[in-house]
Amino acid sequence: SELMETFHAQARAEWARLAVALVEPDLVAAVDAAGLALLAALRGGAKVLVAGNGGSAAMSSHVAAEFAGKCVRDRDPLPALSLAESPTAITAIGNDYAFEQIFARQVRAHGRPGDVLIVMTTSGTSGNITLALDAARAAGLATIALTGSRGEHLRERADHVLVVPSDYTPRIQEVHLMWTHAWCEAVDHAWP
Amino acid sequence: SELMETFHAQARAEWARLAVALVEPDLVAAVDAAGLALLAALRGGAKVLVAGNGGSAAMSSHVAAEFAGKCVRDRDPLPALSLAESPTAITAIGNDYAFEQIFARQVRAHGRPGDVLIVMTTSGTSGNITLALDAARAAGLATIALTGSRGEHLRERADHVLVVPSDYTPRIQEVHLMWTHAWCEAVDHAWP
Ligand SMILES: O=P(O)(O)OC[C@@H](O)[C@H]1O[C@H](O)[C@@H](O)[C@@H](O)[C@@H]1O
Ligand SMILES: O=P(O)(O)OC[C@@H](O)[C@H]1O[C@H](O)[C@@H](O)[C@@H](O)[C@@H]1O
Repeated sequence: SELMETFHAQARAEWARLAVALVEPDLVAAVDAAGLALLAALRGGAKVLVAGNGGSAAMSSHVAAEFAGKCVRDRDPLPALSLAESPTAITAIGNDYAFEQIFARQVRAHGRPGDVLIVMTTSGTSGNITLALDAARAAGLATIALTGSRGEHLRERADHVLVVPSDYTPRIQEVHLMWTHAWCEAVDHAWP
Repeated sequence: SELMETFHAQARAEWARLAVALVEPDLVAAVDAAGLALLAALRGGAKVLVAGNGGSAAMSSHVAAEFAGKCVRDRDPLPALSLAESPTAITAIGNDYAFEQIFARQVRAHGRPGDVLIVMTTSGTSGNITLALDAARAAGLATIALTGSRGEHLRERADHVLVVPSDYTPRIQEVHLMWTHAWCEAVDHAWP
């Protein structure tokens, strides 16, 4: 159909461009460095917290479940927690404090020095995400931000900032899923 | 690093293969037909239920949130519901009936003739998914199954069966996210 063909054609063109952009050596090195930081933190007994809104909230659950359960191979369960998963925590903090605090307050509750916070934001501008990064830094966590081209400015706020060179939400999320999968696959195989 | 490079190389090789396989005309036509069936059902006032386990549970939430909220463009909120989202429903049914019934029983609760059930299963063999498809068919719902090459046999159980030609869970999930995004993007633009 014409309707679907429009989106297939757009997606194909964008993927042809991304296939080249995503193998750019600096970007690959940054993705690897973040993955190795995760592995080192987990080996040292630290935990991983993950946060995002909407589709990225679902992807936070996805990656946390693959660390806590498994991705592609059985190994010890690893301590990863999505901060976007509890309607109780989110509505309580949103109602009693502010929606902008939903992740930051959970970071302060669960985060300890040496832990890692991963955030996913396609725009880079979600207030609850920037506050979570600031709370994590203040609490001594390492921080990894997955974003799109509008999120370049997060480089000031996080240790590892991985920018998908696109401003289109669905494509950015798809690449974030690929990168987090690569980390989970690598951790599964490297463990312990 | 060598560790990460192994997974990048594997993923690149698999994506090079999939880039060709995924534009195979019969497969594209099947993806489109499912998307148009969704759009027609929503236009007719029907609702969409979504189910999956693990990473696919997270992706069920992802697609449901994009229909109920929005994907890429503001439009009326649409009735989509993830059956993998309520720990209360899942533990209640799992505890009182059986884990295999967690989705089927919710299909019987929420599904009405003309509604659409989307399931995502990378193996095609998750018992709670096959029972959900059977319950949906019995209740007069249309059914869409997203799976991998091990799920070919689902063609007997669902109306639309979309098979990613791969048996590797992470890649299958990534393609499922692309297909469901294409549907959400198309619905956003076509609405009403
Ligand atoms: O800019 P972000 O932090 O990624 O936040 C976007 C989310 O609020 C969601 O917005 C819409 O609902 C959709 O585009 C979702 O996919 C997205 O995650
Ligand atoms: O075969 P499926 O129905 O896709 O079910 C697989 C799930 O139970 C999950 O298994 C592991 O935990 C991981 O591979 C997850 O990504 C997966 O969704």
